[in-house]
Amino acid sequence: MKDIQSTSDRRGVEIDEVGIENLRIPIIISEGKNKQSIVAEAKMGINLFNRSRATHMSRFIEIAEAIKGRILSEKLMTETLKKIVTKLGSKHAIVEFSFVYFMTKITPVSKKGCSMDYRCKISSELTKGDEPWHYFYIEVPVATLCPCSKEISKYGAHNQRARVSVKIKSREYFKLDQLIRQLEKTAKNELFSVLKRKDEKYVTEKMYENPMFVEDIAREIYLWAKSNKNISDFIVRCKSYESIHNHNTYASIVDNKIYAHNKKI
Amino acid sequence: MKDIQSTSDRRGVEIDEVGIENLRIPIIISEGKNKQSIVAEAKMGINLFNRSRATHMSRFIEIAEAIKGRILSEKLMTETLKKIVTKLGSKHAIVEFSFVYFMTKITPVSKKGCSMDYRCKISSELTKGDEPWHYFYIEVPVATLCPCSKEISKYGAHNQRARVSVKIKSREYFKLDQLIRQLEKTAKNELFSVLKRKDEKYVTEKMYENPMFVEDIAREIYLWAKSNKNISDFIVRCKSYESIHNHNTYASIVDNKIYAHNKKI
Amino acid sequence: MKDIQSTSDRRGVEIDEVGIENLRIPIIISEGKNKQSIVAEAKMGINLFNRSRATHMSRFIEIAEAIKGRILSEKLMTETLKKIVTKLGSKHAIVEFSFVYFMTKITPVSKKGCSMDYRCKISSELTKGDEPWHYFYIEVPVATLCPCSKEISKYGAHNQRARVSVKIKSREYFKLDQLIRQLEKTAKNELFSVLKRKDEKYVTEKMYENPMFVEDIAREIYLWAKSNKNISDFIVRCKSYESIHNHNTYASIVDNKIYAHNKKI
Amino acid sequence: MKDIQSTSDRRGVEIDEVGIENLRIPIIISEGKNKQSIVAEAKMGINLFNRSRATHMSRFIEIAEAIKGRILSEKLMTETLKKIVTKLGSKHAIVEFSFVYFMTKITPVSKKGCSMDYRCKISSELTKGDEPWHYFYIEVPVATLCPCSKEISKYGAHNQRARVSVKIKSREYFKLDQLIRQLEKTAKNELFSVLKRKDEKYVTEKMYENPMFVEDIAREIYLWAKSNKNISDFIVRCKSYESIHNHNTYASIVDNKIYAHNKKI
Repeated sequence: MKDIQSTSDRRGVEIDEVGIENLRIPIIISEGKNKQSIVAEAKMGINLFNRSRATHMSRFIEIAEAIKGRILSEKLMTETLKKIVTKLGSKHAIVEFSFVYFMTKITPVSKKGCSMDYRCKISSELTKGDEPWHYFYIEVPVATLCPCSKEISKYGAHNQRARVSVKIKSREYFKLDQLIRQLEKTAKNELFSVLKRKDEKYVTEKMYENPMFVEDIAREIYLWAKSNKNISDFIVRCKSYESIHNHNTYASIVDNKIYAHNKKI
Repeated sequence: MKDIQSTSDRRGVEIDEVGIENLRIPIIISEGKNKQSIVAEAKMGINLFNRSRATHMSRFIEIAEAIKGRILSEKLMTETLKKIVTKLGSKHAIVEFSFVYFMTKITPVSKKGCSMDYRCKISSELTKGDEPWHYFYIEVPVATLCPCSKEISKYGAHNQRARVSVKIKSREYFKLDQLIRQLEKTAKNELFSVLKRKDEKYVTEKMYENPMFVEDIAREIYLWAKSNKNISDFIVRCKSYESIHNHNTYASIVDNKIYAHNKKI
Repeated sequence: MKDIQSTSDRRGVEIDEVGIENLRIPIIISEGKNKQSIVAEAKMGINLFNRSRATHMSRFIEIAEAIKGRILSEKLMTETLKKIVTKLGSKHAIVEFSFVYFMTKITPVSKKGCSMDYRCKISSELTKGDEPWHYFYIEVPVATLCPCSKEISKYGAHNQRARVSVKIKSREYFKLDQLIRQLEKTAKNELFSVLKRKDEKYVTEKMYENPMFVEDIAREIYLWAKSNKNISDFIVRCKSYESIHNHNTYASIVDNKIYAHNKKI
Repeated sequence: MKDIQSTSDRRGVEIDEVGIENLRIPIIISEGKNKQSIVAEAKMGINLFNRSRATHMSRFIEIAEAIKGRILSEKLMTETLKKIVTKLGSKHAIVEFSFVYFMTKITPVSKKGCSMDYRCKISSELTKGDEPWHYFYIEVPVATLCPCSKEISKYGAHNQRARVSVKIKSREYFKLDQLIRQLEKTAKNELFSVLKRKDEKYVTEKMYENPMFVEDIAREIYLWAKSNKNISDFIVRCKSYESIHNHNTYASIVDNKIYAHNKKI
């Protein structure tokens, strides 16, 4: 059978990324004693040099099949990137997994264990002859209480669910637990799945005592990320689902001077 | 060219609904002085009797083309249903439009005009020899403040955006404005797009003075709907995006005894 | 601390369903040798009788915490329903899990194993003094090739991804594998994640030999479901993402005479 | 009342973008004779310099209220950007509108007029002392037919809906119609809402005669964009919803050397 993908292409255009996406794979996350099986949505791609017409998509799926049920780690990422580079004959490869990650937390007063889940995405990229770069995208739901509303009102203050997100570029492979705990601590008003009445009293009062604008949260997280030597570049974003409005507010900081000037394209 | 859709079918199975969906159509909503052009997502279907293999999908689109830019009204609904019944040769037809509807509201203290938008869906159905039934689905974003959190805390109370929705079955063609205003009034803590500082103080304090569980809102709206003679059957639902949790709470009441027992299939 | 939820309510309105939703729980699905850990999105609710103001939401989460990491089965469903009825003092309970389920399939020619994933939802309901009802909702992606396009064209025929879905009400607790295989077999053009070139040739030609309208698929699945004695009521739906249009086509059949007349509210 | 937003901030962190998003605004698009009212989802933001604690979000909404019902144009964009810079006291402003745009097309054989809709996003940015930059993001649904499947199969070839998207950075304010027509022409197999049988025959055969990989489409669009002097930087992407798989394939090219090296953060 003719291999039409391998025919030569005369247009002379290199393709930055070509591959498959929205492929679901069952995989394991293991951090310390916390070992969990999750379903990740995967993307895999290569750089296609300018003389080939198309890539062989089924090879990505075969590589993905070999990952099924394995532990997602720096080792697996690097191994998969190398396999892609070799099997698909490219100079550059990318692998990305999006998933929901669970962490057990202890409620503040009743001291019960409860689960919280976080949307995460880990991408790794390898260019032949270089070390891999890793990218960690984490979303942490928190609560925000409006400093202005508190200041001007006789009682109460509007508060709401908000979402803190960071994207980090690093040579280092981070622990998700550490990143999540850091973001929750910095944003101050973290969430829990179970709250007994004495916990609810505690978090309600703590929130009232710690009003924060989206600007405050973005700045605090910026300061933390900036001080972390393993973080090469990063974006921080906070989005608040305002309880008194039907639109949302946001604040974002991009710590990458070159990127900042070009971020729109 | 052969008309393969019109060939006869021997399986003897009547199809309840067959047609097209996710078709976007520009259309006009006109209520009193409020005339607005919106983009609706449309569904159109018929009942296909058991002897025909398939329907002629392109006829729905031709009917839709004739609706473009017209005013969405009881008249247009009935006219379109009759056209479908005739052009597609069926005993039953359905038309449905989903869209975002805007209403101008006045802020509570500064008295500024501001826009709010609401997700709405209007479906109409016609069975030959009967009058049409109309179904109105409306989503109204509101704020809820937790009565328990307020009661047990020294200060503050967790509050959040919530969503009240109703689905109403009626022979009557309702005004959207009236339904929306009724739902906002009943849920007590309505939202605004603009709130100057004196408005923010007002809504913050009002919310603190009017704590409501999702159960309270569902019951209040039930009582209103039940007392409205033009409403034949209805479902009311309230969903609250809890600020202190990462999951949501809900309450729903179905006022249709036959449906209630069968609502899961 | 005051238990404000337990205060009495004078409105005299019973709430059909009140509880929590969009709660993610890690859980295990086990069918034969196929044991997989997945992340389910859960809903849990009760009927709230007319004299109580509100339910105790945190009890649902405590029940959910006890389910974490267990095998999703008829036993777990029934046990959870009974626990809810008891702990929350209600006459009626509902539990629902939505998740992605994986099945290993063998490619048609190269005989390679490959994974496919399917969106599933299982709900169970218990009314005191009755046996539980189970509801299975399954979505199976398939391909459809248009009989009309094939008939009238010199070569080729438009084809596309489509989605077959069924919702089944039963006293029986079904195996997901069996339902999925049945739907794939009935819709004829099933999907695979890996297809080597000889497989691709096979599925391309098979699809061309088996053109089906959405109406055909809905009818074939109806006939299967109707003949299955364990299925009490059901809805079947087929939706096709037409490759030559930007809208979709659908066909649905509801096998529940009472429901059919009331399905819109 | 105290203006807590205007209090000074000691953290010394500049915020790249802060503002409101997911605000819906009714607005008009006018190109030649094609004048249409649409509902846009808007984002508005500023750069917040390092000495201010927070911005005044309600001012964005007041500016948005003044835009309601006006024609979206270069003039409106520039005027709005200048208003934001002035009213919110910043050196940099951004405005973004996402919406669905309709175009009338003529079916290929029966020559009927029919509507097609396209997702579009236009952002403009202004830095004090500079001219505005405009960014156009357009999504065009097309059909792709697999060259490999056609080559190796006796008859037929798998085809499916795909989505071509471009993001363009320019000093020029483009006409949407021109961009859309260009993308449809380049991807070869464009979609229509109405297709009578003779049209369906035509598009089926044309698609069979014009097989294209996602790589082919990305390259062809790259060549067009590269040759257009008004386009400063751009990204092109093609994503295909494979009819024989449950995952998707994609190809993307980024024409911005600085961005390419930093695109992940």
